Amino acid sequence: MSRYWSEVARRLEPYVPGEQPRFPNLVKLNTNENPYGPSPRAIEALQRAANADLRLYPDPDSTRLRESIAAFHGVSADQVFVGNGSDEVLAHAFLALLKHAAPILFPDVTYSFYPVYCGLYGIAYREVPLASDFSIRVEDYRPPNGGIIFPNPNAPTGRLLALADVEHIVAANPQAVVVVDEAYIDFGGESAIPLIHRHPNLLVVRTLSKSHGLAGLRVGYAAGDAALIAALARVKDSFNSYPLDRLAQAGASAAIEDRDYFDAMRAKVIASRERLVAGLGALGFDVVPSAANFVFARHPAMPGGELAARLREQGIIVRHFRKPARIDPFVRITVGTDAQCDALLGALGALFARAAG
Amino acid sequence: MSRYWSEVARRLEPYVPGEQPRFPNLVKLNTNENPYGPSPRAIEALQRAANADLRLYPDPDSTRLRESIAAFHGVSADQVFVGNGSDEVLAHAFLALLKHAAPILFPDVTYSFYPVYCGLYGIAYREVPLASDFSIRVEDYRPPNGGIIFPNPNAPTGRLLALADVEHIVAANPQAVVVVDEAYIDFGGESAIPLIHRHPNLLVVRTLSKSHGLAGLRVGYAAGDAALIAALARVKDSFNSYPLDRLAQAGASAAIEDRDYFDAMRAKVIASRERLVAGLGALGFDVVPSAANFVFARHPAMPGGELAARLREQGIIVRHFRKPARIDPFVRITVGTDAQCDALLGALGALFARAAG
Repeated sequence: MSRYWSEVARRLEPYVPGEQPRFPNLVKLNTNENPYGPSPRAIEALQRAANADLRLYPDPDSTRLRESIAAFHGVSADQVFVGNGSDEVLAHAFLALLKHAAPILFPDVTYSFYPVYCGLYGIAYREVPLASDFSIRVEDYRPPNGGIIFPNPNAPTGRLLALADVEHIVAANPQAVVVVDEAYIDFGGESAIPLIHRHPNLLVVRTLSKSHGLAGLRVGYAAGDAALIAALARVKDSFNSYPLDRLAQAGASAAIEDRDYFDAMRAKVIASRERLVAGLGALGFDVVPSAANFVFARHPAMPGGELAARLREQGIIVRHFRKPARIDPFVRITVGTDAQCDALLGALGALFARAAG
Repeated sequence: MSRYWSEVARRLEPYVPGEQPRFPNLVKLNTNENPYGPSPRAIEALQRAANADLRLYPDPDSTRLRESIAAFHGVSADQVFVGNGSDEVLAHAFLALLKHAAPILFPDVTYSFYPVYCGLYGIAYREVPLASDFSIRVEDYRPPNGGIIFPNPNAPTGRLLALADVEHIVAANPQAVVVVDEAYIDFGGESAIPLIHRHPNLLVVRTLSKSHGLAGLRVGYAAGDAALIAALARVKDSFNSYPLDRLAQAGASAAIEDRDYFDAMRAKVIASRERLVAGLGALGFDVVPSAANFVFARHPAMPGGELAARLREQGIIVRHFRKPARIDPFVRITVGTDAQCDALLGALGALFARAAG
């Protein structure tokens, strides 16, 4: 703390990202990265774009990339906003569309960055408890409110809300913007993006970090009615005119356009998840049904924190959340390659054999 | 405008960046890009980093890059903050360090993004008139104020404030943070970064866009006392944990470490500027003394807006600012290659020959 800090800087409680340890033979299953990496076409595009033209500013509007994304989803480019990772897109959405007099609503168990954005921008919020099975109850999301946000599938639970239920919430709240954070939707859910054509209050946020294997490139986007996109653009142009560098625009565009690779890789992740879920079940874990590239699981014989610590001793990193208390028994495990999942299951098998022995 | 926009989104007056036209044989002298591009070592580093590791998140703290920058300036890594271009660094500085009860001060002729940030974050400000020769008068920057910010050299004038005068302002305002925006300092000024060791209220902001030829990569940074840097990190970690992608971190680090290339390219730009200034003088222009990679000039026979429009007809783009009124007669011309400067001088020569004939 310093006399020079603004009141905002003083009162913030920053988000804490999953750690990025770098040691040999690490089995890194803590930050939901894609084990297969990006399309080779994206890498080629990046290498081509690494040239002397970097002396020039990028397109401030990322026009080509927005067109690629629009074509991918069957919307128009003025219904697409891009940013430096979906975290930046979310930040702008909080300030541009969720900051009103009434508190916004989000689940009590959800992406822990949401209350941080509220702190940053002075937005009132109310946490809505999930059902005991971690499902979102649509009837809990009714006016009055200043907006609604939830991930679908939810994080860190992985549980999916059916598209009809998403639309129910959007339709029941015409007075406010509903943000659906679809970071993980490509691993088993149905996107709400087609609903933007009939719901002017729906904003869908997505990322290339997971299903496109580009966490290292920092590209996210939002799709919604052009009036919502215009508000995001106003905030972006009052913050940083050029959020995406020339390489990110080129690489992301190539990744989006390689639909075959995208479909093949997400199918592989889904198959590995089902295998992992079966393996965890056989070891006695309770696993929340997952439509994401991670699973949320607890074991009756060992607390989540201890489980994560024991795995870490063996070079396997999973993520444990202490808060809220009801998720403390769980660990969140990223779906890696089958070999990584086998390493995890092997370590867990040995752990519980010893515990039982 | 839409019912869904927050009050902030409604009242914003976004920054308008210089246009990025792309047509053949364009002589683009409007956004102060470096004509020589980045170090070949930076390009090599970018090509090496374009690989399957992009599936992994980048280092959220950009540790290696911050160490490179720290070594470049002879400071420690905890005195360095990095962001997605200096515009993002400035945005965080406004919120973390310049948002207080008292209004902040900046020159009336300066980087036009400053009042935009104030609008975004609800920061009161007072514009301090420059002297008639566009110089900053140090005696005008006295308490009370909530902070001070100015570019050095100033934009769009190019005029330098001597380092002793910078220190005078910093020392006269121990109650508040003084931000010195050194986007253009490498083209003829002396950096204030060494002063951070004795002035805990000094933050110096820099960019790789100009003197490192990397406008397309979006990397900026700040140097200051560790307590100021910590406030910026708190805001960053409440906004976007991963502002710099893996490529930007690798490329920027390589660029910073290639000091020979950096010194050679800025010397070339400085030599071209002196040649351009002489050429403009010979054509009857008044040129503000410049320590930047651009010049600010007016011609008694033609208004700035008309000059910019006439040049544009010939494929030469310079920048004209309508506001404030006292700079309306001027155009801002980026120092290009000698060939680009010659094309400009040739076009101007023909223009004034016709006007005189």
